[in-house]
Amino acid sequence: MKILLVGASGTIGSKVYDRLNQNHEIIRAGRNGPDVQVDITDEASIRAMYEKTGNVDAVINASGSAGFAPITELTPEKNETAINSKLKGQINLVLLGLPYVNERGSFTLTSGVMMDDPIPQGSSAAMANGGIRSFVTSTAIEMPRGIRINSVSPNLLQESAERIGHLFAGFEPVPGDKVALAYQKSVEGMQTGQSYEVY
Amino acid sequence: MKILLVGASGTIGSKVYDRLNQNHEIIRAGRNGPDVQVDITDEASIRAMYEKTGNVDAVINASGSAGFAPITELTPEKNETAINSKLKGQINLVLLGLPYVNERGSFTLTSGVMMDDPIPQGSSAAMANGGIRSFVTSTAIEMPRGIRINSVSPNLLQESAERIGHLFAGFEPVPGDKVALAYQKSVEGMQTGQSYEVY
Repeated sequence: MKILLVGASGTIGSKVYDRLNQNHEIIRAGRNGPDVQVDITDEASIRAMYEKTGNVDAVINASGSAGFAPITELTPEKNETAINSKLKGQINLVLLGLPYVNERGSFTLTSGVMMDDPIPQGSSAAMANGGIRSFVTSTAIEMPRGIRINSVSPNLLQESAERIGHLFAGFEPVPGDKVALAYQKSVEGMQTGQSYEVY
Repeated sequence: MKILLVGASGTIGSKVYDRLNQNHEIIRAGRNGPDVQVDITDEASIRAMYEKTGNVDAVINASGSAGFAPITELTPEKNETAINSKLKGQINLVLLGLPYVNERGSFTLTSGVMMDDPIPQGSSAAMANGGIRSFVTSTAIEMPRGIRINSVSPNLLQESAERIGHLFAGFEPVPGDKVALAYQKSVEGMQTGQSYEVY
């Protein structure tokens, strides 16, 4: 398959790349490429990316950011990061990418554990994650041309524990390789409308 | 209690008003009042509303709209209605309203059944609903001053079946009075972080 992997250089993206690269042609996209540059908060940038890649069999997104702040300090402005990146960025990858995905292809988006198992300062991220999960549940029933869509909700990764583990007290980090399996299941399997919760 | 009810003139809001009006002082807010006018898509309008109402014991939101379109016709622009109204509108009622809610007060937001039981054309609404549910789950753990927050996810209402029932094939509509009970439980009870799914 020809797979467009957005966020290919990130912690999750690089594990997904390692897992899928042996059997597929991967186009690695992200703010710094390496194959195609894209800013998912910018519709024009998403359109330009798809024009460069042309048709693909699968789109995986492993990118998207959110602001972290206690609810008493979360302003509408701080909430915009999650709205524009983790939520709308991912959704626009689907809305603008649909014409470029081949028959029986797939989209795989990324949510995250804090929507189910909340952490301090995580409200804005939780909002985006819950929005992605329900968007996927809903779009799956009316995707055209047999296209499938799933999302992966990773727990804290072992690879991220040193950097952000202080926000996830008592969480048991999961290996990035295990999270990558969920993306493989989404792309190579036949399921649709799933939220793969790798907790 | 002094309760600010946003969307008081809507199908759900009027049922909530009927149920809570006997035992509480209700300030009815909405695009056309009747007590206070507010446009939840406009931060300045939300701020102005709270300045007018002053402190309250509970904020209920029963307003918020979303665009309905098949996924193949859902553009980023059409998705903005749900982003700005049902999602950010409700969240900004919380973020901007927190200083105005009394100790041990509450917020009650509104999601909807299509996040769990998807319908054609409902992806944008499902996104907003799922975002609200997860935002509520997460904010509940760090609300200050004993403030609680819940959301209500109503099924199709009997009162709305004639107007929008064609979108909900095979759904069993619920009475508005039953949905209003969930808002009462949220406001008068002690629970927090709940999604009351009235299906």
